Amino acid sequence: MVITKENTIIGFIGTGLMGKSMAGHLLDAGYKLVVYNRTKEKSLELLDKGAVWVDSVLDLAKRCNLIITIIGTPKDVEEVYLGENGLMENAKQGSILVDMTTSSPKLAVKIYEEAKGKNLSALDAPVTGGDIGAKEARLTIMVGGDKETFDEILPIFGLMGKNIVYQGESGFGQHTKICNQIAMAVTLAGVCESLAYAKKSGVNPQNVIKVLETGTAGSNILKVHGHRMLTSDFAAGFYVKHLIKDLKIALVESKELGLDLEMLKHTITLYERLSERGEEYSGVQALFKLYVD
Amino acid sequence: MVITKENTIIGFIGTGLMGKSMAGHLLDAGYKLVVYNRTKEKSLELLDKGAVWVDSVLDLAKRCNLIITIIGTPKDVEEVYLGENGLMENAKQGSILVDMTTSSPKLAVKIYEEAKGKNLSALDAPVTGGDIGAKEARLTIMVGGDKETFDEILPIFGLMGKNIVYQGESGFGQHTKICNQIAMAVTLAGVCESLAYAKKSGVNPQNVIKVLETGTAGSNILKVHGHRMLTSDFAAGFYVKHLIKDLKIALVESKELGLDLEMLKHTITLYERLSERGEEYSGVQALFKLYVD
Repeated sequence: MVITKENTIIGFIGTGLMGKSMAGHLLDAGYKLVVYNRTKEKSLELLDKGAVWVDSVLDLAKRCNLIITIIGTPKDVEEVYLGENGLMENAKQGSILVDMTTSSPKLAVKIYEEAKGKNLSALDAPVTGGDIGAKEARLTIMVGGDKETFDEILPIFGLMGKNIVYQGESGFGQHTKICNQIAMAVTLAGVCESLAYAKKSGVNPQNVIKVLETGTAGSNILKVHGHRMLTSDFAAGFYVKHLIKDLKIALVESKELGLDLEMLKHTITLYERLSERGEEYSGVQALFKLYVD
Repeated sequence: MVITKENTIIGFIGTGLMGKSMAGHLLDAGYKLVVYNRTKEKSLELLDKGAVWVDSVLDLAKRCNLIITIIGTPKDVEEVYLGENGLMENAKQGSILVDMTTSSPKLAVKIYEEAKGKNLSALDAPVTGGDIGAKEARLTIMVGGDKETFDEILPIFGLMGKNIVYQGESGFGQHTKICNQIAMAVTLAGVCESLAYAKKSGVNPQNVIKVLETGTAGSNILKVHGHRMLTSDFAAGFYVKHLIKDLKIALVESKELGLDLEMLKHTITLYERLSERGEEYSGVQALFKLYVD
């Protein structure tokens, strides 16, 4: 099926920090959009722009033929997809289900297989790029599932992201996102320790960033979060709470693959310590507080 | 003093992987160069190009008025500078001593102060950029000490590096290098774990690098060492053994600053484990072997 504005009603579940912007781009492009969110208030902006509200996942499933979700945890994903009043039981024949939540690869495969048995298609398509990437429609989208389904949906992904990559079979989008979160979180912890050292040693830490960023120690985390750390800008582009969730998925999955990822484990420990200090809704760069407070 | 080819004889101690290329650039620019190295064989190329060999640090000190060192460990630095037949006791009045070894900030300050008392000048000026940066004369050079001495030497630094930064008082070059090594080593460990996960999960790890490098997980380590890891290219641009040395300096210094850098500590543990497997002269990217062998 070629997706057009005439033959498609998009259902969007999850209008939080990321989802709100992403769904907005679909509306702006002229697609019919039906939305559902646990907290209705977070959908009001979209309703003002012309989206239609429904009171449940079930209602949404009955009205739409392309359903996009970006919600909290794998548990939430399981409920929305596989629960009693969920998408799997209620979606219309031939619908396409796209989960953009960072979730478990195994759950993605389970959803994909159940969908197949019901004449539905499912993709896992987690994203990176944070709230700014979502706002500016330049997310990276990592996709797993059937290539044909990916090709059908590509124009829709193109409204939300810039770097859209088909990574292979079902679950491979989630696996790629896990790789991303491991590298990102460990790098961030390293940058924290480096800049904490700079600050304590007496060197001008802003000059340290300048020296480091072009060399072997350079990273996008250093560029983006380094300055935020030094200016105590701990506002959330990405919540501590969500990173912990992602890293715990990574830990479970890596263990099942027979890997012992020690740096990952220690990073989780640090973030949990930060969270216990009441920082779960701070931005991930707030990890710096563990070192300099 | 304005440094010219007529009024300056440069002494160069340490013609290893890095020093050999660095000293070569000074020769190429037309400076008179006297060299000493523990193993003479490593200086032969330079001697062929016109450098003069001396048999000891003492002999070198007597002949030169600008002395550059890039040697092994802080212990070696201490011996060469402060030992019985060392530079401090034997350098000519007014000489400038530049230590480019990655070494202890405290030792740099000690050398700086003793030099002052003897009418000598001293700078700490560690580098990053690896063997390739040294070969192509585009090292980053981080300098601590008196600004006037820095300004005098700047043309000489310019023959070896591209990004030459004065970081402040004596020891601040070494402090900056420590910041660099912490961020670099922790990032490298994170990239290892991310790509180990990719490999085990079944996703094409080369595609994972492509997806990650432009986003929040992107780093120069991922770009440079990621591909080396995946193609089992573990040749040394920078030895495991030297990184362990650097990170141990970082650990000692950070403790004295009252910092508990857990990610640094765990990175050292991983590298020691790698070294015990006989990989001390492998490149730092060989850390990947801990995960995929």
